[in-house]
Amino acid sequence: MTSGTSSGTWFNEALYPDWGQRFRVVKELAYRKSPFQDIRIFESSSHGRVLVLDGIVQITERDEFIYQEMLAHVPLFMHPNPKRVLIIGAGDGGVLRRVLQHRTVEKAVMVEIDGDVIELSKQHLPMFGKDAWNDPRAEVIVGDGIDYVKKSGDAAFDVIIVDSTDPIGVGDVLFTDDFYENCARILSDEGIIVNQCGVPFQQADELRETTARRAKFFPHVTAYLAAVPTYVGGFMTLGMAKKGAPPHRPDEVELARRAQGIAEGCQYWTPEVHVASFSLPPYIAQNLPRS
Amino acid sequence: MTSGTSSGTWFNEALYPDWGQRFRVVKELAYRKSPFQDIRIFESSSHGRVLVLDGIVQITERDEFIYQEMLAHVPLFMHPNPKRVLIIGAGDGGVLRRVLQHRTVEKAVMVEIDGDVIELSKQHLPMFGKDAWNDPRAEVIVGDGIDYVKKSGDAAFDVIIVDSTDPIGVGDVLFTDDFYENCARILSDEGIIVNQCGVPFQQADELRETTARRAKFFPHVTAYLAAVPTYVGGFMTLGMAKKGAPPHRPDEVELARRAQGIAEGCQYWTPEVHVASFSLPPYIAQNLPRS
Repeated sequence: MTSGTSSGTWFNEALYPDWGQRFRVVKELAYRKSPFQDIRIFESSSHGRVLVLDGIVQITERDEFIYQEMLAHVPLFMHPNPKRVLIIGAGDGGVLRRVLQHRTVEKAVMVEIDGDVIELSKQHLPMFGKDAWNDPRAEVIVGDGIDYVKKSGDAAFDVIIVDSTDPIGVGDVLFTDDFYENCARILSDEGIIVNQCGVPFQQADELRETTARRAKFFPHVTAYLAAVPTYVGGFMTLGMAKKGAPPHRPDEVELARRAQGIAEGCQYWTPEVHVASFSLPPYIAQNLPRS
Repeated sequence: MTSGTSSGTWFNEALYPDWGQRFRVVKELAYRKSPFQDIRIFESSSHGRVLVLDGIVQITERDEFIYQEMLAHVPLFMHPNPKRVLIIGAGDGGVLRRVLQHRTVEKAVMVEIDGDVIELSKQHLPMFGKDAWNDPRAEVIVGDGIDYVKKSGDAAFDVIIVDSTDPIGVGDVLFTDDFYENCARILSDEGIIVNQCGVPFQQADELRETTARRAKFFPHVTAYLAAVPTYVGGFMTLGMAKKGAPPHRPDEVELARRAQGIAEGCQYWTPEVHVASFSLPPYIAQNLPRS
């Protein structure tokens, strides 16, 4: 059900039973059946290189900047002083790279369950992770994120970024009570967690259910938006939950000051886009608990 | 090149040569070759009813509210007192309906070149126009928008809304110097024109060229964003140009006051979303002239 098919020179994504996108394939670069999933990387003429897991497009060369910038920079700029960051998933290395752009970060631990995704990304998608793989502040662990958060000490991290697949297949355990409870425990007092919550136009349940679940363990839950071309369906939502005080909402002036040295390399994130991303249309906001 | 194909129960859009979306067709509702274009309306299981012109998806039942609300409400709320509105295209009636929700509007003229689009929309997409077709303030003209703006008197309208197809096929004349020059002439002193400028992730040229062209005839040109699921590729941009003083940017408080009686029925537009829609990511902003 979840595996896309290559028909002639077209790759047809099979995320939904009744709607889909297709890419013209210029060249197949890699195909591997890992212990966890089918991994495919191909070169498209429209989107550059495309990473596909179990038939579902994860990221493309041409639009990766949108998802990665918003997933990494927004929580890091909302935390007053993020030093220790945990990344779960994100085997392509793009989130790790953005996290390490923040000078406050002393340690970024990335836990990816599928070592083959990392290996194939380094080989075929080196433009995503760039030098981050070799940064002395980075610790890359091939392992189970669920186990990792279970075994981590209290208050070990300031920010947790969950870059999972949708809650089907290998990623579904990253949407459970048990996982969120441990995340809350291992975050420091003003800790923030973000995770992708899908595209509510197509997957409103995903936003509604994961937000309700996070609300059991965090006093503050909200969401913000990113318009990612290959996650088709208008806005995707990125869920955010926080311990301690309500989330600090930096204004454009504060964000511009903190983003010196980072903003210049962004093609989507700006201080204004950051602030705007919390303005949710009613069709999306109705899936969040009333605050 | 531009006509989509129905293969089995799937409709494959053929907007781009190397990327596409497809819909599972539940039922074909109408197909007509008008003097201007191929018109198709079908029922999909994912998006409700879908209107297709020359193989390109124009609007769907499930997400029409996003495009129509943003195309109509944003310019009308930015004009201090919009009384006379000209709509070009928009044969499905959805923009007309939103325009007539504004109590200041005394007259809304809609000029659609293809009477068959109007007829088939009234028959198969009555939920788009609803009662607007019978509003005494509405004048619906089947005719050529180019001719209409040429023959209209100076300062005849406060707001012009151009709901065209992309600048290929029947809509391409709505992107010319001649057309914009006439629009500037027939707008009142503080008049505003908006038009759809495509999805810059896929069609950056469209935004760049039409913005440069409008800048020849209007002192102020800008753009704002809407994330419309079926106009795939992240944000679409709506181009805005204005005569007279720089555009007034109402804040959330002013917008909330003016939107009483309208905001309640919106599923995308809110005062906050309105303000946020002018925050352009750099990859989009780089296509606008520097102001």
